[in-house]
Amino acid sequence: MGENKDFVKEITNIEEDFAKWYTDIVLKAELADYTDVKGFIAIRPYGYAIWENIQKYVDNKFKEHGVKNISMPVLIPESLLNKEKDHVEGFAPEVAWVTVGGGEELEERLCIRPTSETIFSTMYSKWLSSWRDLPYIYNQWCNVLRWEKETRPFLRSREFLWQEGHTIHETAEEAQKYTLEILDVYADVIENLLAIPVLKGRKTPTEKFAGAEDTYTVETLMHDGRALQAGTTHYFGQNFTKPFDIKFQNRDGKEEYAYQTSWGCSTRLIGAVIMAHGDNRGLKLPPYVAPIQAVIVPIAMHKEGVKEKAEEIYKNLSKKYRMELDEREQYSPGYKFNDWEMKGVPVRIELGPRDIEEGKCVVVRRDTFEKIDVLISDLEVKLQDILDDIQKNMYEECRKRVSQKTTIATNMEEFTKNLEENQGYVKTMWCGSAECEEKIHELTGAKSRCIPFEKEHISDTCVCCGKPANTMVVWGRQY
Amino acid sequence: MGENKDFVKEITNIEEDFAKWYTDIVLKAELADYTDVKGFIAIRPYGYAIWENIQKYVDNKFKEHGVKNISMPVLIPESLLNKEKDHVEGFAPEVAWVTVGGGEELEERLCIRPTSETIFSTMYSKWLSSWRDLPYIYNQWCNVLRWEKETRPFLRSREFLWQEGHTIHETAEEAQKYTLEILDVYADVIENLLAIPVLKGRKTPTEKFAGAEDTYTVETLMHDGRALQAGTTHYFGQNFTKPFDIKFQNRDGKEEYAYQTSWGCSTRLIGAVIMAHGDNRGLKLPPYVAPIQAVIVPIAMHKEGVKEKAEEIYKNLSKKYRMELDEREQYSPGYKFNDWEMKGVPVRIELGPRDIEEGKCVVVRRDTFEKIDVLISDLEVKLQDILDDIQKNMYEECRKRVSQKTTIATNMEEFTKNLEENQGYVKTMWCGSAECEEKIHELTGAKSRCIPFEKEHISDTCVCCGKPANTMVVWGRQY
Repeated sequence: MGENKDFVKEITNIEEDFAKWYTDIVLKAELADYTDVKGFIAIRPYGYAIWENIQKYVDNKFKEHGVKNISMPVLIPESLLNKEKDHVEGFAPEVAWVTVGGGEELEERLCIRPTSETIFSTMYSKWLSSWRDLPYIYNQWCNVLRWEKETRPFLRSREFLWQEGHTIHETAEEAQKYTLEILDVYADVIENLLAIPVLKGRKTPTEKFAGAEDTYTVETLMHDGRALQAGTTHYFGQNFTKPFDIKFQNRDGKEEYAYQTSWGCSTRLIGAVIMAHGDNRGLKLPPYVAPIQAVIVPIAMHKEGVKEKAEEIYKNLSKKYRMELDEREQYSPGYKFNDWEMKGVPVRIELGPRDIEEGKCVVVRRDTFEKIDVLISDLEVKLQDILDDIQKNMYEECRKRVSQKTTIATNMEEFTKNLEENQGYVKTMWCGSAECEEKIHELTGAKSRCIPFEKEHISDTCVCCGKPANTMVVWGRQY
Repeated sequence: MGENKDFVKEITNIEEDFAKWYTDIVLKAELADYTDVKGFIAIRPYGYAIWENIQKYVDNKFKEHGVKNISMPVLIPESLLNKEKDHVEGFAPEVAWVTVGGGEELEERLCIRPTSETIFSTMYSKWLSSWRDLPYIYNQWCNVLRWEKETRPFLRSREFLWQEGHTIHETAEEAQKYTLEILDVYADVIENLLAIPVLKGRKTPTEKFAGAEDTYTVETLMHDGRALQAGTTHYFGQNFTKPFDIKFQNRDGKEEYAYQTSWGCSTRLIGAVIMAHGDNRGLKLPPYVAPIQAVIVPIAMHKEGVKEKAEEIYKNLSKKYRMELDEREQYSPGYKFNDWEMKGVPVRIELGPRDIEEGKCVVVRRDTFEKIDVLISDLEVKLQDILDDIQKNMYEECRKRVSQKTTIATNMEEFTKNLEENQGYVKTMWCGSAECEEKIHELTGAKSRCIPFEKEHISDTCVCCGKPANTMVVWGRQY
């Protein structure tokens, strides 16, 4: 198996240089590639198929929650972006401006959307008239641009794909309730499809979305103990509906401004899957989101009947599972084993002449490397059990890591020590001041992840200033 | 039914001003709306749901033909756009340029993709090495920008949504074959999903895509007799693979340039559906693509048991059909009938207290306005038959119009007379010269639609110059 070693050697060791390991996986598993435009990636078929599976799951859930899809312009006039003060301050520095169109200098420059609150708000203002029209629960799947200085594929790209939902409601309560409803959809997709446990909570005022009254988040923890914000929902109150004049005649016949939300998740989720589950063999995909759930590798393909049997099994299993059959003649079985392990395919099915004689095959799990003899006649049923078990096991492995990497701190010494030893989440009490948040960030590099919905009592004083505190915050260094 | 008349009056008469009728439908059926950015539209939920149904159908067909989806950057550096001479001449005048990003003037300006041949080609050049890697059959669903001077919703927007497929192959034959394979997919979706007959053929050299060796098209004919190009596929030969250096080691171990194709269909298809089927009542949607296939309108909703029965039927039919239940209390049944007719819903189900007593309901077809009594117990099965029949009938109606509006001309006098009387397609022989094409356009306003695959012998001489001709061309004024 010399081949084996050489092959694996190409990937940087995950414990030595996690950042480089990540880039290796993205490129070698052919999830994405760099392009001629700095900070912009091409998402390759294998990476895009993961996104398609996420989209399908999320879009179905959305539709259960009354979401309707629409499409808004990709360009936003500068005057429109400027309408909400906090919003423009947050986004104007990182937009791309179109100044020439159809060979002529434009009278007003147009930015490529970094997010579309302003343009949705303009149209809502035009469309809305009565309480009977409400709520508007609209979403778009699209690309957005943010001119980041430092970029990393999927995690922080100048262009990324996402969905952005924008809703307006008759009452503040209904709008607030909806932000939590969608947060649960995000938690569902991340936990049940991507097998990554989430921490749900509210962002501190410093970490809120530009223009929001409240931002809610689902936070995840990666292999190296750094946190990744995986989805957010925002409650705007009337912050946009007032400047954008989104009003309606209410049930009492009076004019009232609507209450607004927005929410998004993006191709960043692909980055989360890579960094939450991967190992030194490469990518490790949860079966429910994997573009290929099982690959059949025939052994001694030249022997009579091997290819035929492999093709028969492939055809049969393809009716129920997302399958691949590797009949490449230029590679040895050993090479193929490594290749599919690196690509993170949950199950490999090995099939040689002797297996066929015995009416069986060997099923190898990507998560545990366990080898299981399965009768070919049982394969269709057994495969589902194995995939279900892998999905469960991968979630459990992540959950254990989060648990191991979650610590408590009551003073800054403990805080720093915990992070140095463990990375991960640090739970503390917090007085509520932005100064303490800033100081913690300076001292430890950690930012507040959220004020979790599940409250705990850790101590009576702020971890930073020692003043009385009754808010529990989870902190962590972030992507 | 005074209400009825008033309501319908809001739509311009289709025979008096087709262009205005079209805009009325787009706005009043809430398919799309104008935005603050000139030439850019917002596609509203009802319009977008049509696009989603088209996407689902096309994407499934694509996958049967080995297509894999990917995502390429939305921005293209100017130097890249300039690499293929004909291509840049065709597109450069109508692009939008980004000149500022992240607060800084860019060193090289970037255009928003008008189409992505150049960027696909760059990545293909990077990825391709051996004949074993071929073919690449990749597609993206995305937005593109073309800075048109005159715009119309769906038909000609500065931004539109589409899919663009880009493939490279080992041989010219395989590539050419593939362009025809995908042309058949387009014909399938337009005929079977949208119920619009197509004319398939090859574009004349003048009408080819910028940079292509051959362009194939599916042409359709609208209510007013004008033609609409509904989908095109292009064979590039090595026109891009040479300047972009897309080469591979062939089976003989020699370097060779790959053979390339591209193909696209867009939200313009929504425009085709509106203009091919609509009438003075409004939109008329083919059942297979309609977001709402049947709407239930309860009569005398306040009477006991009516709402309950309507809701029961709605719940039951929703398992199989895309349904709507109109329980709006502020509108009369008459208003609702008109509203749903205007929105083009194929079937209306009327349900009043007496119907319920008799265990029946009244099914009204949008295409023929026929009223059919159906037992409630038969509804689930019967509805499918009725929808199938509407789909077939709508296709047949279109086919008849195309047939009536297709004429033959052997000289320019006939040509002009036919077009004046009939609009539609005019079939003629053509000598093959661009001069005659240009002259015909000047004299009649018609352009060559295509050289149909189904050849016919009409005469022995060119309709324009009278010289010997053996190519048959179909002409028409276009959208």
